[in-house]
Amino acid sequence: MPDTEEQRVKSLGGGSLLIAWQLKDKHVLIVGGGEIGSQRIESILHTDANISLLAPSDGLHARTKRFLELRKDRITHSDRTLKNADDIELEGIDMVLTALDDPALSAEIVSVCRSHRIPVNAADIPDLCDFYFGAQIRDGPLQIVFSTNGNGPRMAALVRNKIQNSLSGYEGEAIKQVGLLRIKLKEKAPGVGGDVSKERMRWMTKLCDAWEVENLATLDETIMERLIKEGWEKGRKVPTAEEMGLRPKRRINWTALWNEVPPIPTVAAFVFGVVTTTILLTIKARRL
Amino acid sequence: MPDTEEQRVKSLGGGSLLIAWQLKDKHVLIVGGGEIGSQRIESILHTDANISLLAPSDGLHARTKRFLELRKDRITHSDRTLKNADDIELEGIDMVLTALDDPALSAEIVSVCRSHRIPVNAADIPDLCDFYFGAQIRDGPLQIVFSTNGNGPRMAALVRNKIQNSLSGYEGEAIKQVGLLRIKLKEKAPGVGGDVSKERMRWMTKLCDAWEVENLATLDETIMERLIKEGWEKGRKVPTAEEMGLRPKRRINWTALWNEVPPIPTVAAFVFGVVTTTILLTIKARRL
Repeated sequence: MPDTEEQRVKSLGGGSLLIAWQLKDKHVLIVGGGEIGSQRIESILHTDANISLLAPSDGLHARTKRFLELRKDRITHSDRTLKNADDIELEGIDMVLTALDDPALSAEIVSVCRSHRIPVNAADIPDLCDFYFGAQIRDGPLQIVFSTNGNGPRMAALVRNKIQNSLSGYEGEAIKQVGLLRIKLKEKAPGVGGDVSKERMRWMTKLCDAWEVENLATLDETIMERLIKEGWEKGRKVPTAEEMGLRPKRRINWTALWNEVPPIPTVAAFVFGVVTTTILLTIKARRL
Repeated sequence: MPDTEEQRVKSLGGGSLLIAWQLKDKHVLIVGGGEIGSQRIESILHTDANISLLAPSDGLHARTKRFLELRKDRITHSDRTLKNADDIELEGIDMVLTALDDPALSAEIVSVCRSHRIPVNAADIPDLCDFYFGAQIRDGPLQIVFSTNGNGPRMAALVRNKIQNSLSGYEGEAIKQVGLLRIKLKEKAPGVGGDVSKERMRWMTKLCDAWEVENLATLDETIMERLIKEGWEKGRKVPTAEEMGLRPKRRINWTALWNEVPPIPTVAAFVFGVVTTTILLTIKARRL
Protein backbone atom coordinates (compact mmCIF):
# COMPACT_ATOMS: atom_id res chain seq x y z
CA MET A 1 0.00 0.00 0.00
CA PRO A 2 1.42 3.41 -0.87
CA ASP A 3 2.54 5.83 1.80
CA THR A 4 -0.21 8.26 0.86
CA GLU A 5 -2.86 5.74 1.93
CA GLU A 6 -0.96 5.16 5.20
CA GLN A 7 -0.82 8.92 5.68
CA ARG A 8 -4.53 9.19 4.99
CA VAL A 9 -5.45 6.53 7.57
CA LYS A 10 -3.16 8.08 10.17
CA SER A 11 -4.69 11.50 9.71
CA LEU A 12 -8.36 10.46 9.80
CA GLY A 13 -10.15 12.69 12.29
CA GLY A 14 -11.61 16.10 12.93
CA GLY A 15 -15.13 15.17 11.83
CA SER A 16 -18.40 14.18 13.33
CA LEU A 17 -20.70 11.28 12.52
CA LEU A 18 -23.41 12.36 10.11
CA ILE A 19 -26.36 10.05 10.70
CA ALA A 20 -30.06 9.76 10.01
CA TRP A 21 -31.68 9.51 13.44
CA GLN A 22 -34.98 7.59 13.47
CA LEU A 23 -37.73 9.31 15.45
CA LYS A 24 -40.96 7.86 14.05
CA ASP A 25 -43.49 7.86 16.92
CA LYS A 26 -40.76 8.71 19.44
CA HIS A 27 -41.14 11.58 21.86
CA VAL A 28 -39.17 14.81 21.54
CA LEU A 29 -39.24 17.61 24.12
CA ILE A 30 -38.62 21.11 22.77
CA VAL A 31 -38.04 23.85 25.34
CA GLY A 32 -38.68 27.31 23.92
CA GLY A 33 -41.06 28.45 21.17
CA GLY A 34 -39.28 31.44 19.60
CA GLU A 35 -37.75 31.53 16.14
CA ILE A 36 -35.21 28.75 16.77
CA GLY A 37 -37.92 26.77 18.56
CA SER A 38 -40.14 26.98 15.47
CA GLN A 39 -37.29 25.70 13.30
CA ARG A 40 -36.81 22.78 15.67
CA ILE A 41 -40.51 21.97 15.53
CA GLU A 42 -40.37 21.86 11.73
CA SER A 43 -37.30 19.58 11.74
CA ILE A 44 -39.02 17.19 14.14
CA LEU A 45 -42.37 17.23 12.30
CA HIS A 46 -40.44 15.87 9.30
CA THR A 47 -39.58 12.76 11.32
CA ASP A 48 -43.11 11.74 12.43
CA ALA A 49 -42.18 12.08 16.09
CA ASN A 50 -44.51 13.40 18.80
CA ILE A 51 -43.50 16.77 20.19
CA SER A 52 -43.96 18.21 23.67
CA LEU A 53 -43.44 21.95 23.49
CA LEU A 54 -42.62 23.61 26.79
CA ALA A 55 -42.92 27.38 26.38
CA PRO A 56 -45.05 30.26 27.67
CA SER A 57 -47.81 31.29 25.23
CA ASP A 58 -46.85 34.95 25.16
CA GLY A 59 -43.39 34.40 23.67
CA LEU A 60 -44.37 32.14 20.77
CA HIS A 61 -43.13 32.88 17.25
CA ALA A 62 -45.81 33.20 14.56
CA ARG A 63 -44.63 29.99 12.89
CA THR A 64 -44.73 28.15 16.22
CA LYS A 65 -48.36 29.23 16.65
CA ARG A 66 -49.11 28.05 13.14
CA PHE A 67 -47.59 24.62 13.84
CA LEU A 68 -49.60 24.33 17.09
CA GLU A 69 -52.75 25.14 15.18
CA LEU A 70 -52.18 22.82 12.22
CA ARG A 71 -50.42 19.90 13.84
CA LYS A 72 -52.44 19.10 16.96
CA ASP A 73 -51.96 15.47 15.91
CA ARG A 74 -48.27 15.69 16.78
CA ILE A 75 -47.68 18.62 19.13
CA THR A 76 -48.71 18.97 22.78
CA HIS A 77 -48.21 22.43 24.22
CA SER A 78 -47.35 22.97 27.87
CA ASP A 79 -47.94 26.69 28.46
CA ARG A 80 -45.51 27.57 31.23
CA THR A 81 -42.13 29.18 31.85
CA LEU A 82 -39.46 26.78 33.03
CA LYS A 83 -37.66 28.10 36.10
CA ASN A 84 -35.62 25.10 37.11
CA ALA A 85 -34.19 22.28 35.00
CA ASP A 86 -35.29 19.74 37.62
CA ASP A 87 -38.92 20.63 36.89
CA ILE A 88 -38.74 18.95 33.47
CA GLU A 89 -40.68 15.73 33.11
CA LEU A 90 -38.32 13.38 31.24
CA GLU A 91 -40.26 10.15 31.60
CA GLY A 92 -40.73 8.64 28.12
CA ILE A 93 -38.74 11.39 26.38
CA ASP A 94 -36.30 10.22 23.68
CA MET A 95 -34.65 13.50 22.75
CA VAL A 96 -34.49 17.05 24.12
CA LEU A 97 -33.89 20.27 22.18
CA THR A 98 -33.51 23.58 23.98
CA ALA A 99 -34.15 26.88 22.19
CA LEU A 100 -33.86 29.35 25.05
CA ASP A 101 -32.29 32.76 25.55
CA ASP A 102 -30.96 31.59 28.90
CA PRO A 103 -27.60 29.75 28.53
CA ALA A 104 -27.42 28.91 32.25
CA LEU A 105 -30.81 27.21 32.22
CA SER A 106 -29.93 25.47 28.94
CA ALA A 107 -26.74 24.13 30.50
CA GLU A 108 -28.70 22.82 33.48
CA ILE A 109 -31.17 21.07 31.17
CA VAL A 110 -28.28 19.49 29.27
CA SER A 111 -26.81 18.14 32.47
CA VAL A 112 -30.14 16.66 33.62
CA CYS A 113 -30.58 15.02 30.19
CA ARG A 114 -27.07 13.65 30.29
CA SER A 115 -27.72 12.00 33.66
CA HIS A 116 -30.77 10.32 32.07
CA ARG A 117 -28.76 9.44 28.93
CA ILE A 118 -31.18 11.35 26.72
CA PRO A 119 -29.65 12.85 23.53
CA VAL A 120 -29.74 16.64 23.80
CA ASN A 121 -29.04 19.71 21.68
CA ALA A 122 -28.82 23.18 23.20
CA ALA A 123 -29.21 25.78 20.46
CA ASP A 124 -26.89 28.27 22.09
CA ILE A 125 -24.15 26.08 23.57
CA PRO A 126 -22.46 23.98 20.86
CA ASP A 127 -19.85 22.64 23.29
CA LEU A 128 -22.53 20.89 25.31
CA CYS A 129 -24.44 19.32 22.42
CA ASP A 130 -24.55 15.61 21.70
CA PHE A 131 -25.28 16.53 18.08
CA TYR A 132 -25.61 19.49 15.74
CA PHE A 133 -28.10 20.28 13.03
CA GLY A 134 -26.12 20.59 9.79
CA ALA A 135 -27.02 22.87 6.92
CA GLN A 136 -29.83 21.17 5.02
CA ILE A 137 -31.34 20.95 1.58
CA ARG A 138 -34.69 19.22 1.40
CA ASP A 139 -36.78 18.16 -1.60
CA GLY A 140 -39.53 15.77 -0.54
CA PRO A 141 -37.93 12.43 0.37
CA LEU A 142 -34.50 13.72 -0.64
CA GLN A 143 -32.53 15.16 2.24
CA ILE A 144 -29.02 16.51 1.91
CA VAL A 145 -27.05 17.63 4.93
CA PHE A 146 -23.58 19.00 4.90
CA SER A 147 -21.11 20.16 7.45
CA THR A 148 -17.84 22.06 7.20
CA ASN A 149 -17.03 21.08 10.76
CA GLY A 150 -17.30 24.61 12.01
CA ASN A 151 -14.84 25.92 9.42
CA GLY A 152 -16.87 28.90 8.38
CA PRO A 153 -20.45 29.69 7.44
CA ARG A 154 -19.37 31.37 4.19
CA MET A 155 -17.85 28.18 2.85
CA ALA A 156 -20.97 26.28 3.86
CA ALA A 157 -23.09 28.72 1.84
CA LEU A 158 -20.77 28.28 -1.12
CA VAL A 159 -21.09 24.50 -0.98
CA ARG A 160 -24.85 24.82 -0.64
CA ASN A 161 -24.99 26.89 -3.84
CA LYS A 162 -22.91 24.38 -5.74
CA ILE A 163 -25.08 21.46 -4.62
CA GLN A 164 -28.32 23.34 -5.22
CA ASN A 165 -27.22 24.32 -8.74
CA SER A 166 -26.33 20.72 -9.55
CA LEU A 167 -29.90 19.59 -8.91
CA SER A 168 -32.70 20.23 -11.37
CA GLY A 169 -35.40 20.43 -8.70
CA TYR A 170 -37.07 17.27 -10.04
CA GLU A 171 -35.04 14.84 -7.92
CA GLY A 172 -37.39 14.76 -4.92
CA GLU A 173 -40.44 14.05 -7.08
CA ALA A 174 -38.51 11.46 -9.12
CA ILE A 175 -37.42 9.65 -5.95
CA LYS A 176 -41.01 9.62 -4.71
CA GLN A 177 -42.46 8.26 -7.96
CA VAL A 178 -39.72 5.63 -8.35
CA GLY A 179 -40.52 4.53 -4.78
CA LEU A 180 -44.20 4.16 -5.73
CA LEU A 181 -43.33 2.21 -8.89
CA ARG A 182 -41.16 -0.10 -6.80
CA ILE A 183 -44.09 -0.83 -4.47
CA LYS A 184 -46.42 -1.41 -7.44
CA LEU A 185 -43.95 -3.78 -9.08
CA LYS A 186 -43.56 -5.70 -5.83
CA GLU A 187 -47.35 -6.19 -5.72
CA LYS A 188 -47.37 -7.55 -9.29
CA ALA A 189 -44.29 -9.73 -8.80
CA PRO A 190 -44.07 -10.49 -5.09
CA GLY A 191 -41.31 -12.34 -3.32
CA VAL A 192 -38.50 -11.38 -0.95
CA GLY A 193 -34.92 -12.43 -1.62
CA GLY A 194 -33.88 -14.84 -4.37
CA ASP A 195 -34.31 -14.43 -8.13
CA VAL A 196 -37.52 -12.36 -8.35
CA SER A 197 -36.13 -9.81 -5.97
CA LYS A 198 -32.90 -9.56 -7.98
CA GLU A 199 -34.80 -9.32 -11.26
CA ARG A 200 -36.96 -6.52 -9.91
CA MET A 201 -33.92 -4.64 -8.74
CA ARG A 202 -32.19 -5.07 -12.11
CA TRP A 203 -35.22 -3.81 -14.02
CA MET A 204 -35.67 -0.78 -11.73
CA THR A 205 -31.96 0.05 -12.08
CA LYS A 206 -32.15 -0.13 -15.87
CA LEU A 207 -35.18 2.15 -15.87
CA CYS A 208 -33.57 4.74 -13.60
CA ASP A 209 -30.43 4.71 -15.75
CA ALA A 210 -32.32 5.00 -19.04
CA TRP A 211 -34.78 7.73 -18.09
CA GLU A 212 -34.02 11.35 -17.29
CA VAL A 213 -34.86 12.51 -13.76
CA GLU A 214 -37.36 14.95 -15.28
CA ASN A 215 -39.26 12.05 -16.88
CA LEU A 216 -39.10 9.85 -13.78
CA ALA A 217 -40.71 12.75 -11.90
CA THR A 218 -43.74 12.65 -14.19
CA LEU A 219 -44.44 8.92 -13.71
CA ASP A 220 -48.13 8.60 -12.86
CA GLU A 221 -50.47 5.71 -12.14
CA THR A 222 -51.27 5.12 -15.84
CA ILE A 223 -47.68 5.17 -17.04
CA MET A 224 -46.61 2.90 -14.17
CA GLU A 225 -49.26 0.34 -15.16
CA ARG A 226 -48.16 0.53 -18.80
CA LEU A 227 -44.48 0.25 -17.87
CA ILE A 228 -45.16 -2.96 -15.98
CA LYS A 229 -47.47 -4.36 -18.69
CA GLU A 230 -45.48 -3.37 -21.78
CA GLY A 231 -42.03 -3.61 -20.24
CA TRP A 232 -41.63 -5.86 -17.20
CA GLU A 233 -44.20 -8.43 -18.34
CA LYS A 234 -42.82 -8.48 -21.91
CA GLY A 235 -39.42 -9.99 -21.23
CA ARG A 236 -38.30 -7.41 -18.67
CA LYS A 237 -37.93 -4.76 -21.35
CA VAL A 238 -37.37 -1.12 -20.42
CA PRO A 239 -39.45 1.12 -22.73
CA THR A 240 -38.08 4.57 -23.39
CA ALA A 241 -39.79 7.66 -22.04
CA GLU A 242 -40.80 8.53 -25.61
CA GLU A 243 -42.46 5.13 -26.07
CA MET A 244 -44.50 5.96 -22.99
CA GLY A 245 -45.58 9.21 -24.60
CA LEU A 246 -43.33 11.45 -22.55
CA ARG A 247 -41.32 14.22 -24.11
CA PRO A 248 -37.73 13.04 -24.47
CA LYS A 249 -36.28 16.50 -24.16
CA ARG A 250 -33.93 17.24 -21.41
CA ARG A 251 -34.32 20.39 -19.46
CA ILE A 252 -31.11 22.31 -19.83
CA ASN A 253 -30.23 24.72 -17.10
CA TRP A 254 -28.95 27.52 -19.32
CA THR A 255 -28.06 29.79 -16.43
CA ALA A 256 -25.83 27.12 -14.95
CA LEU A 257 -24.32 26.41 -18.37
CA TRP A 258 -23.61 30.08 -18.88
CA ASN A 259 -21.80 30.23 -15.56
CA GLU A 260 -19.93 26.99 -15.98
CA VAL A 261 -18.95 26.76 -19.62
CA PRO A 262 -16.07 28.87 -20.72
CA PRO A 263 -17.01 30.51 -24.03
CA ILE A 264 -13.66 29.38 -25.44
CA PRO A 265 -14.81 26.18 -27.22
CA THR A 266 -17.67 28.02 -28.88
CA VAL A 267 -15.56 30.97 -30.01
CA ALA A 268 -12.78 28.61 -31.09
CA ALA A 269 -15.26 26.56 -33.14
CA PHE A 270 -16.51 29.72 -34.85
CA VAL A 271 -13.00 30.90 -35.67
CA PHE A 272 -12.09 27.40 -36.88
CA GLY A 273 -15.13 27.47 -39.19
CA VAL A 274 -14.15 30.87 -40.60
CA VAL A 275 -10.52 29.92 -41.14
CA THR A 276 -11.13 26.55 -42.81
CA THR A 277 -13.80 27.97 -45.10
CA THR A 278 -11.58 30.90 -46.09
CA ILE A 279 -8.70 28.57 -46.90
CA LEU A 280 -10.90 26.16 -48.88
CA LEU A 281 -12.65 28.88 -50.84
CA THR A 282 -9.36 30.71 -51.54
CA ILE A 283 -7.80 27.49 -52.88
CA LYS A 284 -10.88 26.88 -55.01
CA ALA A 285 -10.82 30.47 -56.32
CA ARG A 286 -7.14 30.20 -57.32
CA ARG A 287 -7.74 26.97 -59.18
CA LEU A 288 -10.54 28.46 -61.26
CA MET B 1 -51.16 32.33 4.53
CA PRO B 2 -51.93 30.46 1.32
CA ASP B 3 -53.52 27.03 1.35
CA THR B 4 -50.43 25.48 -0.19
CA GLU B 5 -48.39 26.41 2.90
CA GLU B 6 -51.10 24.92 5.11
CA GLN B 7 -51.01 21.78 2.99
CA ARG B 8 -47.23 21.66 3.29
CA VAL B 9 -47.27 21.93 7.09
CA LYS B 10 -49.98 19.29 7.36
CA SER B 11 -48.06 16.85 5.20
CA LEU B 12 -44.66 17.24 6.90
CA GLY B 13 -43.36 13.77 7.72
CA GLY B 14 -41.78 10.62 6.34
CA GLY B 15 -38.22 11.70 7.03
CA SER B 16 -35.54 11.17 9.59
CA LEU B 17 -33.42 13.67 11.49
CA LEU B 18 -30.09 14.15 9.77
CA ILE B 19 -27.65 15.23 12.45
CA ALA B 20 -23.93 15.54 13.10
CA TRP B 21 -23.28 13.37 16.15
CA GLN B 22 -20.30 14.48 18.26
CA LEU B 23 -18.00 11.63 19.28
CA LYS B 24 -14.67 13.31 20.06
CA ASP B 25 -12.96 11.22 22.77
CA LYS B 26 -16.14 9.21 23.31
CA HIS B 27 -16.13 5.42 23.30
CA VAL B 28 -17.63 3.39 20.48
CA LEU B 29 -17.96 -0.40 20.53
CA ILE B 30 -17.87 -2.11 17.12
CA VAL B 31 -18.84 -5.80 17.08
CA GLY B 32 -17.51 -7.56 13.97
CA GLY B 33 -14.41 -6.88 11.87
CA GLY B 34 -15.44 -7.94 8.35
CA GLU B 35 -16.01 -5.63 5.41
CA ILE B 36 -18.89 -3.69 7.02
CA GLY B 37 -16.92 -3.61 10.27
CA SER B 38 -13.98 -2.01 8.48
CA GLN B 39 -16.30 0.66 7.03
CA ARG B 40 -17.65 1.39 10.51
CA ILE B 41 -14.12 1.73 11.87
CA GLU B 42 -13.29 4.27 9.17
CA SER B 43 -16.46 6.28 9.88
CA ILE B 44 -15.65 6.39 13.59
CA LEU B 45 -11.96 7.21 13.09
CA HIS B 46 -13.17 10.37 11.33
CA THR B 47 -14.82 11.49 14.58
CA ASP B 48 -11.81 11.22 16.92
CA ALA B 49 -13.60 8.68 19.10
CA ASN B 50 -11.95 5.71 20.79
CA ILE B 51 -12.93 2.36 19.35
CA SER B 52 -13.26 -1.02 21.03
CA LEU B 53 -13.33 -3.70 18.34
CA LEU B 54 -14.83 -7.00 19.44
CA ALA B 55 -14.05 -9.63 16.77
CA PRO B 56 -12.06 -12.85 16.38
CA SER B 57 -8.71 -12.30 14.67
CA ASP B 58 -9.24 -14.95 12.00
CA GLY B 59 -12.24 -13.23 10.39
CA LEU B 60 -10.80 -9.73 10.03
CA HIS B 61 -11.01 -7.90 6.71
CA ALA B 62 -7.71 -6.67 5.25
CA ARG B 63 -8.72 -3.05 5.84
CA THR B 64 -9.66 -3.81 9.44
CA LYS B 65 -6.17 -5.27 9.98
CA ARG B 66 -4.66 -2.18 8.39
CA PHE B 67 -6.63 0.10 10.74
CA LEU B 68 -5.57 -1.96 13.78
CA GLU B 69 -1.94 -1.66 12.69
CA LEU B 70 -1.96 2.07 11.92
CA ARG B 71 -4.37 3.41 14.52
CA LYS B 72 -3.28 1.79 17.79
CA ASP B 73 -3.81 5.26 19.27
CA ARG B 74 -7.58 4.92 18.82
CA ILE B 75 -8.48 1.22 18.46
CA THR B 76 -8.38 -1.50 21.11
CA HIS B 77 -8.90 -4.99 19.77
CA SER B 78 -10.60 -7.68 21.82
CA ASP B 79 -9.82 -10.93 19.99
CA ARG B 80 -12.80 -13.13 20.79
CA THR B 81 -16.04 -14.45 19.34
CA LEU B 82 -19.14 -13.12 21.05
CA LYS B 83 -21.55 -15.92 21.94
CA ASN B 84 -24.05 -14.10 24.10
CA ALA B 85 -25.14 -10.46 24.03
CA ASP B 86 -24.99 -10.34 27.83
CA ASP B 87 -21.22 -10.91 27.66
CA ILE B 88 -20.70 -7.41 26.24
CA GLU B 89 -19.05 -4.93 28.54
CA LEU B 90 -21.05 -1.71 28.13
CA GLU B 91 -19.59 0.31 30.98
CA GLY B 92 -18.40 3.66 29.59
CA ILE B 93 -19.62 2.89 26.05
CA ASP B 94 -21.39 5.78 24.26
CA MET B 95 -22.42 4.06 21.02
CA VAL B 96 -22.59 0.50 19.68
CA LEU B 97 -22.35 -0.64 16.05
CA THR B 98 -22.85 -4.28 15.10
CA ALA B 99 -21.47 -5.67 11.84
CA LEU B 100 -22.24 -9.38 12.21
CA ASP B 101 -23.57 -12.14 9.96
CA ASP B 102 -25.83 -13.26 12.79
CA PRO B 103 -29.12 -11.30 12.85
CA ALA B 104 -30.34 -13.05 16.03
CA LEU B 105 -27.22 -12.08 17.96
CA SER B 106 -27.40 -8.55 16.51
CA ALA B 107 -31.00 -8.22 17.68
CA GLU B 108 -30.00 -9.36 21.18
CA ILE B 109 -27.20 -6.79 21.27
CA VAL B 110 -29.64 -4.07 20.19
CA SER B 111 -32.02 -4.98 23.00
CA VAL B 112 -29.25 -4.94 25.63
CA CYS B 113 -28.09 -1.52 24.34
CA ARG B 114 -31.62 -0.20 24.39
CA SER B 115 -32.03 -1.18 28.05
CA HIS B 116 -28.85 0.79 28.79
CA ARG B 117 -30.06 3.69 26.58
CA ILE B 118 -26.99 3.44 24.38
CA PRO B 119 -27.49 4.51 20.73
CA VAL B 120 -27.10 1.45 18.51
CA ASN B 121 -26.94 0.58 14.81
CA ALA B 122 -27.22 -3.01 13.59
CA ALA B 123 -25.87 -3.27 10.04
CA ASP B 124 -28.30 -5.97 8.98
CA ILE B 125 -31.52 -4.98 10.77
CA PRO B 126 -32.65 -1.48 9.74
CA ASP B 127 -35.91 -1.78 11.69
CA LEU B 128 -34.02 -2.02 14.96
CA CYS B 129 -31.60 0.84 14.39
CA ASP B 130 -31.68 4.10 16.33
CA PHE B 131 -29.96 5.66 13.32
CA TYR B 132 -28.73 4.90 9.80
CA PHE B 133 -25.57 5.81 7.99
CA GLY B 134 -26.60 7.84 4.95
CA ALA B 135 -24.72 7.84 1.68
CA GLN B 136 -21.69 10.05 2.17
CA ILE B 137 -19.33 12.27 0.27
CA ARG B 138 -16.27 13.36 2.18
CA ASP B 139 -13.51 15.80 1.34
CA GLY B 140 -11.45 16.67 4.40
CA PRO B 141 -13.57 18.82 6.72
CA LEU B 142 -16.42 18.84 4.19
CA GLN B 143 -18.97 16.12 4.76
CA ILE B 144 -22.10 15.68 2.71
CA VAL B 145 -24.71 13.10 3.63
CA PHE B 146 -27.87 12.43 1.77
CA SER B 147 -30.81 10.17 2.19
CA THR B 148 -33.66 9.20 -0.11
CA ASN B 149 -35.54 7.77 2.86
CA GLY B 150 -35.27 4.24 1.58
CA ASN B 151 -36.73 5.15 -1.82
CA GLY B 152 -34.17 3.31 -3.86
CA PRO B 153 -30.41 2.92 -3.99
CA ARG B 154 -30.32 3.80 -7.68
CA MET B 155 -31.75 7.26 -7.11
CA ALA B 156 -29.25 7.77 -4.29
CA ALA B 157 -26.41 6.92 -6.67
CA LEU B 158 -27.82 9.37 -9.21
CA VAL B 159 -27.97 12.17 -6.65
CA ARG B 160 -24.44 11.33 -5.52
CA ASN B 161 -23.16 11.71 -9.09
CA LYS B 162 -24.86 15.05 -9.51
CA ILE B 163 -23.43 16.38 -6.27
CA GLN B 164 -19.97 14.96 -6.91
CA ASN B 165 -19.87 16.51 -10.38
CA SER B 166 -20.86 19.88 -9.00
CA LEU B 167 -17.78 19.99 -6.77
CA SER B 168 -14.33 20.72 -8.12
CA GLY B 169 -12.51 18.63 -5.54
CA TYR B 170 -10.88 21.72 -4.02
CA GLU B 171 -13.69 22.49 -1.57
CA GLY B 172 -12.31 20.41 1.33
CA GLU B 173 -8.87 22.00 1.12
CA ALA B 174 -10.39 25.48 0.71
CA ILE B 175 -12.54 25.01 3.82
CA LYS B 176 -9.49 23.86 5.77
CA GLN B 177 -7.32 26.81 4.72
CA VAL B 178 -10.10 29.35 5.29
CA GLY B 179 -10.49 27.87 8.79
CA LEU B 180 -6.75 28.37 9.41
CA LEU B 181 -6.88 31.95 8.11
CA ARG B 182 -9.78 32.63 10.45
CA ILE B 183 -7.75 31.41 13.43
CA LYS B 184 -4.75 33.48 12.33
CA LEU B 185 -6.88 36.60 11.93
CA LYS B 186 -8.39 36.07 15.36
CA GLU B 187 -4.87 35.99 16.86
CA LYS B 188 -3.96 39.28 15.16
CA ALA B 189 -7.27 40.97 15.95
CA PRO B 190 -8.63 39.23 19.05
CA GLY B 191 -11.97 39.84 20.68
CA VAL B 192 -15.20 37.90 20.98
CA GLY B 193 -18.54 39.51 20.09
CA GLY B 194 -18.99 43.19 19.33
CA ASP B 195 -17.46 45.21 16.52
CA VAL B 196 -14.12 43.43 15.99
CA SER B 197 -15.86 40.12 15.68
CA LYS B 198 -18.31 41.51 13.12
CA GLU B 199 -15.54 43.21 11.16
CA ARG B 200 -13.56 39.96 11.03
CA MET B 201 -16.60 38.09 9.78
CA ARG B 202 -17.32 40.72 7.12
CA TRP B 203 -13.74 40.63 5.84
CA MET B 204 -13.66 36.82 5.70
CA THR B 205 -16.98 36.79 3.85
CA LYS B 206 -15.73 39.31 1.28
CA LEU B 207 -12.60 37.25 0.74
CA CYS B 208 -14.52 33.98 0.29
CA ASP B 209 -16.88 35.66 -2.17
CA ALA B 210 -14.11 37.31 -4.20
CA TRP B 211 -11.74 34.36 -4.51
CA GLU B 212 -12.27 31.14 -6.42
CA VAL B 213 -12.38 27.96 -4.35
CA GLU B 214 -9.29 26.76 -6.23
CA ASN B 215 -7.35 29.81 -5.02
CA LEU B 216 -8.64 29.59 -1.45
CA ALA B 217 -7.35 26.00 -1.44
CA THR B 218 -3.80 27.20 -2.14
CA LEU B 219 -3.70 29.70 0.75
CA ASP B 220 -0.46 29.04 2.62
CA GLU B 221 1.25 30.55 5.66
CA THR B 222 3.01 33.24 3.59
CA ILE B 223 -0.05 34.32 1.65
CA MET B 224 -2.14 34.39 4.84
CA GLU B 225 0.39 36.69 6.50
CA ARG B 226 0.41 38.95 3.43
CA LEU B 227 -3.38 38.97 3.21
CA ILE B 228 -3.62 40.19 6.79
CA LYS B 229 -0.80 42.71 6.38
CA GLU B 230 -1.66 44.11 2.95
CA GLY B 231 -5.43 43.69 3.19
CA TRP B 232 -6.92 43.53 6.69
CA GLU B 233 -4.44 45.96 8.24
CA LYS B 234 -4.73 48.37 5.29
CA GLY B 235 -8.31 49.47 5.74
CA ARG B 236 -9.86 45.99 5.65
CA LYS B 237 -9.12 45.69 1.93
CA VAL B 238 -9.54 42.36 0.15
CA PRO B 239 -6.65 41.87 -2.32
CA THR B 240 -7.38 39.76 -5.37
CA ALA B 241 -5.80 36.35 -5.83
CA GLU B 242 -3.70 37.79 -8.66
CA GLU B 243 -2.37 40.53 -6.39
CA MET B 244 -1.24 37.77 -4.05
CA GLY B 245 0.65 36.15 -6.92
CA LEU B 246 -1.83 33.34 -7.49
CA ARG B 247 -2.91 32.33 -10.95
CA PRO B 248 -6.39 33.65 -11.58
CA LYS B 249 -7.29 30.79 -13.87
CA ARG B 250 -10.03 28.47 -12.94
CA ARG B 251 -9.55 24.74 -13.22
CA ILE B 252 -12.02 23.36 -15.70
CA ASN B 253 -13.32 19.87 -15.20
CA TRP B 254 -13.24 18.78 -18.83
CA THR B 255 -14.68 15.32 -18.18
CA ALA B 256 -17.69 16.81 -16.46
CA LEU B 257 -18.05 19.37 -19.25
CA TRP B 258 -17.92 16.62 -21.85
CA ASN B 259 -20.69 14.77 -20.06
CA GLU B 260 -22.81 17.77 -19.26
CA VAL B 261 -22.53 20.13 -22.18
CA PRO B 262 -24.49 19.30 -25.28
CA PRO B 263 -22.11 19.65 -28.24
CA ILE B 264 -24.74 21.78 -29.97
CA PRO B 265 -23.31 25.25 -29.19
CA THR B 266 -19.86 24.23 -30.41
CA VAL B 267 -21.09 22.57 -33.60
CA ALA B 268 -23.50 25.43 -34.21
CA ALA B 269 -20.68 27.95 -33.83
CA PHE B 270 -18.57 26.03 -36.35
CA VAL B 271 -21.41 25.84 -38.87
CA PHE B 272 -22.16 29.53 -38.33
CA GLY B 273 -18.51 30.33 -39.05
CA VAL B 274 -18.56 28.26 -42.25
CA VAL B 275 -21.81 29.74 -43.49
CA THR B 276 -21.03 33.41 -42.83
CA THR B 277 -17.56 33.12 -44.38
CA THR B 278 -18.97 31.38 -47.45
CA ILE B 279 -21.59 34.06 -47.91
CA LEU B 280 -19.12 36.90 -47.41
CA LEU B 281 -16.49 35.41 -49.73
CA THR B 282 -19.07 34.57 -52.38
CA ILE B 283 -20.40 38.12 -52.34
CA LYS B 284 -16.85 39.43 -52.58
CA ALA B 285 -16.04 37.07 -55.47
CA ARG B 286 -19.13 38.14 -57.41
CA ARG B 287 -18.29 41.80 -57.01
CA LEU B 288 -14.79 41.33 -58.40
